[in-house]
Amino acid sequence: MRTDPLYRYEELATFITNLVDKGTLRPGSRAPSLRQISKQQRTSLTTALQAYRMLEDRGVLEAKPQSGFFVAKRPALSLETPSMTKPPGKATSVSVSAVVMQLLEHASNPKLVPLGCAVPSAELLAADRLDRSLARVARLKGTQYNIYTVLRGDPRLREEIARRASRWGQALSPDDIAITCGCTEALTLALKTVASPGDTIAIESPTYFGLLHIIETLDLKALELPTDANSGIDLGALEKALETTPIKACLFASSFNNPLGCTVPREKKIAILELLAKYRIPLIEDDIYGDIYFGKERPEPYMALDRWENTIYCSSFSKTVAPGYRVGWLASGRHMQRVLENKVAFTLCSPALAQAAMADFLTSGGYDIHLRRIRRTFEDNIEQMIGAVDRTFPKGTKATRPAGGFVLWLELPRPFDSRALFTRALARGISFAPGDVFSATNRYRHCLRLSGGFPWSPRIEKGIKTLAEMIHASLAGGPA
Amino acid sequence: MRTDPLYRYEELATFITNLVDKGTLRPGSRAPSLRQISKQQRTSLTTALQAYRMLEDRGVLEAKPQSGFFVAKRPALSLETPSMTKPPGKATSVSVSAVVMQLLEHASNPKLVPLGCAVPSAELLAADRLDRSLARVARLKGTQYNIYTVLRGDPRLREEIARRASRWGQALSPDDIAITCGCTEALTLALKTVASPGDTIAIESPTYFGLLHIIETLDLKALELPTDANSGIDLGALEKALETTPIKACLFASSFNNPLGCTVPREKKIAILELLAKYRIPLIEDDIYGDIYFGKERPEPYMALDRWENTIYCSSFSKTVAPGYRVGWLASGRHMQRVLENKVAFTLCSPALAQAAMADFLTSGGYDIHLRRIRRTFEDNIEQMIGAVDRTFPKGTKATRPAGGFVLWLELPRPFDSRALFTRALARGISFAPGDVFSATNRYRHCLRLSGGFPWSPRIEKGIKTLAEMIHASLAGGPA
Repeated sequence: MRTDPLYRYEELATFITNLVDKGTLRPGSRAPSLRQISKQQRTSLTTALQAYRMLEDRGVLEAKPQSGFFVAKRPALSLETPSMTKPPGKATSVSVSAVVMQLLEHASNPKLVPLGCAVPSAELLAADRLDRSLARVARLKGTQYNIYTVLRGDPRLREEIARRASRWGQALSPDDIAITCGCTEALTLALKTVASPGDTIAIESPTYFGLLHIIETLDLKALELPTDANSGIDLGALEKALETTPIKACLFASSFNNPLGCTVPREKKIAILELLAKYRIPLIEDDIYGDIYFGKERPEPYMALDRWENTIYCSSFSKTVAPGYRVGWLASGRHMQRVLENKVAFTLCSPALAQAAMADFLTSGGYDIHLRRIRRTFEDNIEQMIGAVDRTFPKGTKATRPAGGFVLWLELPRPFDSRALFTRALARGISFAPGDVFSATNRYRHCLRLSGGFPWSPRIEKGIKTLAEMIHASLAGGPA
Repeated sequence: MRTDPLYRYEELATFITNLVDKGTLRPGSRAPSLRQISKQQRTSLTTALQAYRMLEDRGVLEAKPQSGFFVAKRPALSLETPSMTKPPGKATSVSVSAVVMQLLEHASNPKLVPLGCAVPSAELLAADRLDRSLARVARLKGTQYNIYTVLRGDPRLREEIARRASRWGQALSPDDIAITCGCTEALTLALKTVASPGDTIAIESPTYFGLLHIIETLDLKALELPTDANSGIDLGALEKALETTPIKACLFASSFNNPLGCTVPREKKIAILELLAKYRIPLIEDDIYGDIYFGKERPEPYMALDRWENTIYCSSFSKTVAPGYRVGWLASGRHMQRVLENKVAFTLCSPALAQAAMADFLTSGGYDIHLRRIRRTFEDNIEQMIGAVDRTFPKGTKATRPAGGFVLWLELPRPFDSRALFTRALARGISFAPGDVFSATNRYRHCLRLSGGFPWSPRIEKGIKTLAEMIHASLAGGPA
């Protein structure tokens, strides 16, 4: 029973969405023109346009230049979504490095169909404007920037990052931020700062294999928590774990967990923060995919909702514009001094010119224009990928419905073995990420992750089809 | 009793050197012209020129454009050199981070007379050519390099580094090398790879405070070894330590220990390697100052002399051309796989464009031209600095005679307290490095290190004079 007053354009948007849901407006068909709908529904043209723009953001309609609005093509899928995961309830040491190294060895091999590492294609990023900033700064101010930066990193870049954070309600000062060599260094510094060898870190399950590798490298233990493909970790399981296990810190994705693509509802985030505050357990959040949201608004990271000053926020520009620049950052609150001490021992400071170029790029507004474009592309990639999986993969396959990011997680009927497929697929020129590297306890061997970091193409579609054929063959008992 | 046949030009060089040593040729005076000396000593003009070039390299003569050769100005110094250090013979935990952070906070403050951190002045480095390489690569190949590099880093850069290593007799393949974020990351990765928390690392004493900070951060222990300001660690003390202490690794400077500027004679290096091979203790060597030698030839690093494959070699371009680029590397032999695993957890990979630009710069030969120039400048800085200290510091002050690098180590009469001076000098706009940050056991509080990274200038001369006045005052019992 919704009692909030609805804006007129929201009413109109709901009206159209209902028509689509009920099949009155079919996928791919032309939507009523703005003139028609505003006349029919007695609204102004501006209100109608506002409603259509919102529906476009939500992926219900698509604008085609010169032709008006069309109902987005969202074919009905037969794929179910995965259920809540059930990892074991105890902390374990981690041993994923060998496979992680194997995966990364293939990350920059252009000969493979790139479904493996979650690396966006350089062409797609089209960071020319950023590169031009770098060229300009190097040419005009090379000498000025041929220095060790101040410990926290370039002040202008930190100002720009703080300014962006203020958009989602986070009041950060530039001095709350430290620049790092990518999100990897941010996460490693954060973990090194709050935990010592042997300590237990609670994580989502499945989770990004890079996190597991860091946990392994720092001689920490991992406690995997049950995680839902739509709404993130199980709050009850977290509470129980906090009661029974000496957890030193939690490390969760802010939004769009890799590999599930899920995001945690705002209220649940607040409840998690409340729980962690009660037990005085710090939360390290990885918001590297935060800017790649498919919905209308950027989900708030934990830090923006944290009244208990309990969060260390980590992110970078590697998934959105410049993996090659290695510019990440963290906001570590009261832990800043120790974070900086660790940073000095790990890399002393980050390269100065890349930071100056990134600051210019952010100031110019180039990043926002760029983000709008790639969000659309990644969402389209994921949709196409789900469609292709739906058409070709075995019956019983389950697939996530990511709300952001650009990876897709698939659960296959057992006894499918993704590690065996991995080796064979590489031999056929296709990379993907086998499921078990996303677990500290060798789970998810019947799962796999596909990356949608490259624009949809016949080559990628064919790669998915080939994977599907290999899986069919192996499930039928033949050679994969 | 030297029995090797001497080349004619070497005989001639020795002849001239004797004239200088005996005062027959006075500092600053004109040397015999090439024509005179060749006639007098019955050699060809070519041989005479060869001898003079060698003497120039050795700093005995100086060539002045259009005027011929002059005897280098080396005024007789009253300063003694420090004696062998006597650190305690047991391993201790380290706690220098607080002061190190304070030092680094001041590193990039242009308002201070820059005698503190060993950072070369950006103007002196004049890395325009490197910056132009970076600008060109960013403009023309930005997209191509907007990637995670292969795990070891840019292949062209590794080829160039391997090629340079071959000049001092080191046969490395590009795959023996991994690119890092500066020498700091190289050293941290090396230590993390061979040692675990609680392990003991044998180091020179005094040693670079950054090493101590890394040892502290990785929860290792340090065992300081007696070190001579001319010839490095005491071989007997090392042997005794290996017999009595469970040392996990040694971490020594290849050449020009920071802060002593000493280098270990070739034969002693071989003896050290032999000893370490016997005890199967790996040696991590820090060769960051190796290219800044004042003598005729680059001293061979340990790795080039190591027949036991026991050495991990670390270096970077930060002291010679580009502190702001953060490009370092290590050659870690059989430890490579674990080094790479640690690298992936620490920073994933290093920025791609900076590596490509550095590869271009090395290929073009720009680096060698540049090195010849700055070696001369740093040697001149150190000489001027020693002279200024000799003129102004209290009687009883001892000073090193660095064979390379650009730092000077001073030992003052007790009860001089360099930490007290540090605070007061900062207040008067002068930075330097207090002696105790170079020790794990709070030694060398009566010592200090001056950096000669900035070209000699009245401002720097005045800074040294002011320090001297403050020291005189404090030794006389007045306010420092």
